[in-house]
Amino acid sequence: MTEAVEIVEVGPRDGFQGIGPFIPTETKLSFLERLVGAGLRRIEIGSFVSASALPQMRDTPEILAACARWPTLRPQVLVPSERRGREAAAAGARDLAYVLSVSDSHNRNNVRRSPSDSADEYARLLDGLPPGTFVRLNLATAFDCPFEGRIGEAQVLALLDRLVPMKPDAEICLCDTTGRADPAQVGALFAAAQARVPQARTWAFHAHDTYGLGLANVHAAYARGVRVFDASFAGLGGCPFAPGATGNVATEDVVWLFERMGVATGIDLSALIPVARDGAAIPGGLPGGRVREALSTNPDACAAARLT
Amino acid sequence: MTEAVEIVEVGPRDGFQGIGPFIPTETKLSFLERLVGAGLRRIEIGSFVSASALPQMRDTPEILAACARWPTLRPQVLVPSERRGREAAAAGARDLAYVLSVSDSHNRNNVRRSPSDSADEYARLLDGLPPGTFVRLNLATAFDCPFEGRIGEAQVLALLDRLVPMKPDAEICLCDTTGRADPAQVGALFAAAQARVPQARTWAFHAHDTYGLGLANVHAAYARGVRVFDASFAGLGGCPFAPGATGNVATEDVVWLFERMGVATGIDLSALIPVARDGAAIPGGLPGGRVREALSTNPDACAAARLT
Repeated sequence: MTEAVEIVEVGPRDGFQGIGPFIPTETKLSFLERLVGAGLRRIEIGSFVSASALPQMRDTPEILAACARWPTLRPQVLVPSERRGREAAAAGARDLAYVLSVSDSHNRNNVRRSPSDSADEYARLLDGLPPGTFVRLNLATAFDCPFEGRIGEAQVLALLDRLVPMKPDAEICLCDTTGRADPAQVGALFAAAQARVPQARTWAFHAHDTYGLGLANVHAAYARGVRVFDASFAGLGGCPFAPGATGNVATEDVVWLFERMGVATGIDLSALIPVARDGAAIPGGLPGGRVREALSTNPDACAAARLT
Repeated sequence: MTEAVEIVEVGPRDGFQGIGPFIPTETKLSFLERLVGAGLRRIEIGSFVSASALPQMRDTPEILAACARWPTLRPQVLVPSERRGREAAAAGARDLAYVLSVSDSHNRNNVRRSPSDSADEYARLLDGLPPGTFVRLNLATAFDCPFEGRIGEAQVLALLDRLVPMKPDAEICLCDTTGRADPAQVGALFAAAQARVPQARTWAFHAHDTYGLGLANVHAAYARGVRVFDASFAGLGGCPFAPGATGNVATEDVVWLFERMGVATGIDLSALIPVARDGAAIPGGLPGGRVREALSTNPDACAAARLT
C-alpha cells in the first residue's frame, strides 16, 4: 500500500433520505456503529432540512448528538441554507456539507433558488460559522442534469470562480448526480477545475452508478489526483429530484477497487460486507453495486481483495 | 465522434455456453439477426468443442452455415485445439478464436493440457489453416486465476514471447476471466505487453464485470490504445470452470460508455436494449450490466447516450 484515499460514507444521508418507511433511529445508530467498526471515519449522518420535505431526516439532531460515542468518527451533515447551517452548528455539527446545483433547473427544484442565489447563500453561511468548522462544498449536476442534460465545463468553472475564493480551504466535491458522466468527462473537468482554481485545497468526487460507470469515473478522478470519494454502503441512494438516478456508487465496490489497486482505504471489507448486505435489505431501499453479491456468493474471494 | 472502437459480441458463445436448458437453434438465430440489426459486425456465434462437455454449443456448425444470410456479419467461432480448428475451417469458419489460459491450473481444467502444450497446439493449428483465416488469440486468466489468484506480468509476457512470433497479425486478447483485474493492472499489463511484443498488430480486451470493475477496466485498456473489446449482450456469461465468475461486461454498457465519451461504436443502443432485455430473460441465463435496466426504467435517457 503506497497511497491512501479517504472514503466518505454518505449512505445514512444520501441512501436513507429517499427511503419512504421511517427507519427507526436506533436502527440508524446500529448501522452507524457497524460502519464505524468497519473502519469508516467520515460519515454523512443526515441533513438539516425541512422535516416535511424529507421526513426520513427528521432525527438528524438526535443522531448527531449520539455520534459523540464514537471518538474516531467525524459526523458530517448536509445543509442547504444559511439558516440550516446555523441550526446544525448550534446542534454541535463540526463538519458541514453545503450543496448547490450547477444547473438552474435542478437547483430551483432542489432549493427553489437560482445557483447564483445559492452562491450568495453560501457566503452568508460561511460568515456565520463557528471558527474551525470543516466545510464541504457539493456541486450537484456538475456533469449532467436530469432536466438539462450534459453540463458544459464553462458553467462549472464560472461557479467555482465565485465560490472557491470565499473559502479556499473548503473541500470541493464535484457530483455526478445522474450517473451519466463518463470517465473522459470526469478526468477533463477535474483537470480544468484544478487549473482554474489552484487555490482550492481538496477535491472530492461523488459518483453514481446508475449506468454502470461509477467505478470507471472514480478511477478517472483518482487518475487526476482526487483522493476523497463519496460512496454509499449497499449502493443505497439516489436523488429524489432526479428521476431514474438511483444508485450511489457502493462503498464496498469503491473499497474493492482501491484495495485491488494497492491503495489503502482503511476499511475492512470483510466487516463492511455484512453491513452492506443488511443495508440492501432495508424496506424501501434501492440497493446497487456488485461486490456485495460477488463476495456473498463466493466468500473465498473476500481474501482476494488484498493482494499483500 | 473522433475515434472508433470495435465491439465483438460474445454473448452467443460465452453467454449461452453456461446456460443449462438448450436454447433452440431458431431462437439463437433470432437473437443473432437482432444483434446484427443493432449494428454488431463481429459476433462469436459458438464454439467447436465436445458436445458432451458443452451441449449448448452442439449446433454451432448449423448456426455458422446460417450466418451466410447476413452479409455484414463476421461470425467468429472458438476452438480449443488443432483438431477443432480444422473442423471449424472445414465447416466454413473464416474467423477463429483460439483460447489458452496463462495459469497452469485453469488451462488444465479447461483443456487438460499445460499452457506450454497449448502453445505448441496453437502452432500446429496455424500450420493447417486455410490462407486468409483471421485468428484471434485469447489469453484467459491473463490477470487473475480462480485457482491461483493474481497472475504476474512476467508469466503473461513469457507466453506472449512464444505465441506472438507464430503469427504477428493475430489479434491478441487479454482476458480477465475472473473479473478481479483492476484498472491499474489492466493499464500496466497492456503497456508492458505492447512494449514486449511490438510486432503484435492488434490488441483486444475481454472484461468481466463480476466485481463491478468491467467498465473501469475497459476504459483503462482504451486509455492504453486498445480498440477491440469483447462484450456480451445482457451481460450474459461467465466461465463454467471459474466458480463465481458470472458476468461478461454487458454490450449495452460498453456501448453506453463509448458513446457518452464521443467514441463511435457503430451500434444503435435503442435497437440493442430490447434484445438485451430478451437476452436477460433466457431461462437459466445469468444476466448483468446496468444500462439495460437504467434505460428501461427511464426511456427518455436513451436519447442522452448520444451527445451530438
